[in-house]
Amino acid sequence: MRMSQLFVRTLRDAPTDAEVPSHQLLVRAGYVRRAAPGIYTWLPLGLKVLGKVEQIVREEMDAIGAQEVRFPALLPREPYEATNRWTEYGPNLFRLQDRRGTDMLLGPTHEEMFTLLVKDLYGSYKDLPVTLYQIQTKYRDEARPRAGILRGREFVMKDSYSFDLSDEGLETSYRNHRDAYIRIFDRLGLEYVIVHADSGAMGGSASEEFLAVLPIGEDTFVRSPGGYAANVEAVTTVVPEAIAFDGLPDSHVEDTPATPTIETLVDHLNERFPREDRPWAAGDTLKNVLVMLRHPDGSTEPLAIGVPGDREVDTKRLETQVSPAEVEAFDEVAFKNHPGLVKGYIGPGSLGTESGTGIRYLLDPRVVPGTRWVTGANQPGKHVLDLVAGRDFTADGTIEAAEVRAGDPAPDGSGPLELARGMEMGHIFQLGRKFAEALGLQVQGEDGKLATVTMGSYGVGVSRAVAAVIESSHDELGIVWPKELAPYDVHVVLAGKDDVTVAGAEQVVADLETAGVEVLFDDRPKVSPGVKFKDAELLGMPTIVVVGRGYAEGLVEVKDRATGERRDVPVADLVAVLTTP
Amino acid sequence: MRMSQLFVRTLRDAPTDAEVPSHQLLVRAGYVRRAAPGIYTWLPLGLKVLGKVEQIVREEMDAIGAQEVRFPALLPREPYEATNRWTEYGPNLFRLQDRRGTDMLLGPTHEEMFTLLVKDLYGSYKDLPVTLYQIQTKYRDEARPRAGILRGREFVMKDSYSFDLSDEGLETSYRNHRDAYIRIFDRLGLEYVIVHADSGAMGGSASEEFLAVLPIGEDTFVRSPGGYAANVEAVTTVVPEAIAFDGLPDSHVEDTPATPTIETLVDHLNERFPREDRPWAAGDTLKNVLVMLRHPDGSTEPLAIGVPGDREVDTKRLETQVSPAEVEAFDEVAFKNHPGLVKGYIGPGSLGTESGTGIRYLLDPRVVPGTRWVTGANQPGKHVLDLVAGRDFTADGTIEAAEVRAGDPAPDGSGPLELARGMEMGHIFQLGRKFAEALGLQVQGEDGKLATVTMGSYGVGVSRAVAAVIESSHDELGIVWPKELAPYDVHVVLAGKDDVTVAGAEQVVADLETAGVEVLFDDRPKVSPGVKFKDAELLGMPTIVVVGRGYAEGLVEVKDRATGERRDVPVADLVAVLTTP
Repeated sequence: MRMSQLFVRTLRDAPTDAEVPSHQLLVRAGYVRRAAPGIYTWLPLGLKVLGKVEQIVREEMDAIGAQEVRFPALLPREPYEATNRWTEYGPNLFRLQDRRGTDMLLGPTHEEMFTLLVKDLYGSYKDLPVTLYQIQTKYRDEARPRAGILRGREFVMKDSYSFDLSDEGLETSYRNHRDAYIRIFDRLGLEYVIVHADSGAMGGSASEEFLAVLPIGEDTFVRSPGGYAANVEAVTTVVPEAIAFDGLPDSHVEDTPATPTIETLVDHLNERFPREDRPWAAGDTLKNVLVMLRHPDGSTEPLAIGVPGDREVDTKRLETQVSPAEVEAFDEVAFKNHPGLVKGYIGPGSLGTESGTGIRYLLDPRVVPGTRWVTGANQPGKHVLDLVAGRDFTADGTIEAAEVRAGDPAPDGSGPLELARGMEMGHIFQLGRKFAEALGLQVQGEDGKLATVTMGSYGVGVSRAVAAVIESSHDELGIVWPKELAPYDVHVVLAGKDDVTVAGAEQVVADLETAGVEVLFDDRPKVSPGVKFKDAELLGMPTIVVVGRGYAEGLVEVKDRATGERRDVPVADLVAVLTTP
Repeated sequence: MRMSQLFVRTLRDAPTDAEVPSHQLLVRAGYVRRAAPGIYTWLPLGLKVLGKVEQIVREEMDAIGAQEVRFPALLPREPYEATNRWTEYGPNLFRLQDRRGTDMLLGPTHEEMFTLLVKDLYGSYKDLPVTLYQIQTKYRDEARPRAGILRGREFVMKDSYSFDLSDEGLETSYRNHRDAYIRIFDRLGLEYVIVHADSGAMGGSASEEFLAVLPIGEDTFVRSPGGYAANVEAVTTVVPEAIAFDGLPDSHVEDTPATPTIETLVDHLNERFPREDRPWAAGDTLKNVLVMLRHPDGSTEPLAIGVPGDREVDTKRLETQVSPAEVEAFDEVAFKNHPGLVKGYIGPGSLGTESGTGIRYLLDPRVVPGTRWVTGANQPGKHVLDLVAGRDFTADGTIEAAEVRAGDPAPDGSGPLELARGMEMGHIFQLGRKFAEALGLQVQGEDGKLATVTMGSYGVGVSRAVAAVIESSHDELGIVWPKELAPYDVHVVLAGKDDVTVAGAEQVVADLETAGVEVLFDDRPKVSPGVKFKDAELLGMPTIVVVGRGYAEGLVEVKDRATGERRDVPVADLVAVLTTP
């Protein structure tokens, strides 16, 4: 391929909406182009990379015996109605009606369709296990499409589904996928971690995510020295032992004027009610946070969450816990509707389904019986001290909504947690029998009785991987493709105008192509070598070969894009140098 | 691949909604499965065939220097608004709104997006010509999805677009595509014709269709002994010479009671007003047909069409002429709204924009000045005779809406036409500057002035081709795949239970696979040879190898699926026999 022919235009500046490096580089280097918010066109170079990612995924899926199919993207409503996902997906689902007014959707994932297909074709235990996959365009109407193809509204995913008779069978299918995913992400050259994942809206049991370790990642994950790794949404709190009530002082309400924040409250406590053992700290207070839940049917419900005052409520952890409900602010209107709440001084006394407000009240798991708290007294300017959990107040349950912090203990006792950022690239998930039950997927067992099939669900973000690889492999000059993904192996730059050099470059290209090397040849006659070099760095092929002044002495320059290392190579040796692994 | 593992289930009976052979066979043989009306899932065998068609198309596109890109299927409204196709597509377009209420659509074709992309990246005459293509999923909300994947609502198409500066450049791009299409359809093994096509809603000039010659085809085309070939929509009428009015008798109204049809009228004429030279015939009458046009904006307009009484109005030809308006019936309500029309006796006197009814009136091109007609007198039970076109009546213009009949002269003088049925598989089209003008695609010319780019638009029905090939290549037993499209080269049937035969079949499969032959191996242990043979015929691999009783004597049976020819081949020679072209 010649640069003079290639449909590409490199840009000096990134588009204004591009904030992350992969987005900037993909657009600047002419790999993709925006068609609508969160919706991109693949240009020739980008499509080649996408095809290489697809091929890696396909090979590894085939290697575990998964069979490729392809579902439509435009789907009927009924199956998604049967599993309630038509509603649960909320505004993330693209819905439409056809000319007859029939409700349809653009598939976000295909659990229902795969389940129905297997039900349609199979009916006996002898047919199982089977694993099917597709590499296909999917749709999610993200509230905030961002970061280019990292989080788009139309994207390519590999999704696969395993169908087994027994839990052991599912365990095997899950393990096979886990191994295949390890091979896929190794081949993509990504640094990644496998974390315990919350299962989110899917319901079900074992679930792990493959996260690319990237500072721009949207997910926070934790890991411990002892090998524990999890998405923050999946971290469970290490619950302290309950404390006996004996000898605990009675609670007492105190004047705490002008202390609407934890910080002002702690200062006030230390000034007016100093402790003997140590100063008061934020962790001695119990903060009660109010939110409004919006359920998929549109109804709203207030919820109060009590957490130690030194921790914030983590929105993602909270959202995971209350899903499929969505979390909204508890606004002024809501306060007006609950006059029993004294803003800034809300305490357990006014919370709970049994209380005057009737607002459901959930506590952080650390608030075990016998712990003593300073918290709101439900009177303006007053707090209550020595309020003992289990003795002076109770709640409607606990919730894992408090933030996870570096240094928190790992739930499996493997040491203190550290936090890092990751981007979800793959998800493997023991779905169990939820979808099979909802859609009636049963097969006749060996004993003649009908048995419900158990399923696994497994996804790889294929188009996202193109961007994730760039995030982890670029420099200030441009993209640095790993060999397995580069659209071309070698970028040959013609840096001379005389006939000998031009003919030499043509010959170099011809020789490389004969040897099976894929070459991008910058043959542009009226473009300066400087611009060509810059374009070559930007486009990111692993090897750059410059045919220029040295050619007269039989030398070309070979540059390694990743290391920047340059060396002169005799033209006669070039093919051997570039084709020897 | 082993049949015991392959995700497939063959069916003895075709689904009740399957009327054409390809639809029946694709479902019965487990190649596709219906997901919704006009929307299909590709099962493993079907997806392999689809992939092979895609690869043929890709190779031939690459060979003419076209570059592959991939546009989204979910598209913004604005570009389609700019070309008026948002409206013109009418109910055939899937429209939807995203969560912000923004209008979007599922792309039926991508002229607008390609035009905007080239405008986005290119700006100089030096950038042209360029040809881009994609192989992509498209959407059309067909009123009557039918015939399985032959006319679905979600389907795979290759669409490409050429961008040139000059008409000569477009001519070259068009010619290149024409040649590539010939190679594609040759490789697919289809019998096809290239016909002059109407350009339909696209506007523009030269346009040809590649039609697979199939009795179930939806298009009627004509061809002449001299090599003329055209879609009926594109056939132009050979217009007779005008006749001088001198000596023509005056028109006269006659009683023709109870003659509401052409047949009754002709009988009545022959009985009551016999001609001297010959009997009256249907072709002596002028039939006035009323329809209602519905314009894209929803408004309606009545239209009258005058055709010789021996010809019907051809709906498709009419639709093509009035597009983007749609044709609806002129119903009782419409008659009530036009009391000036006397049903069954409508004549030119009550038609035309200048007439009392004001209804637009278009004539068949054969109704040239000087031709004499018997037609309605606008009075119940009365016709007018010797009404001379151009002397006694005129119309608002002519229209090519009368049916084309076998024996009609070819417009280029190459002889009488014959009619046949075809299925549109490809369309090449000199789009010209319509889209470039609507969307402002200009480049700086060599002279420094801005020049509007001229475009070509070219499509291949990729998923449709899978079905079209089956339509032209099947028998009563099943599919007969041509070698280039078969999902597997050889279908090995194990027809024996003893260890030696089983081991022998395994060895045969291993040997073939080692030699690079793709094998489908029917290893199912509890399935009778008879069922296996039937499945092998149904699935349609080009070669069936039976490993059975003869194996003990070192022989296997090789059957050619297409010819039915069987022969015993020594096991030792099998690989050589099957790999020698």
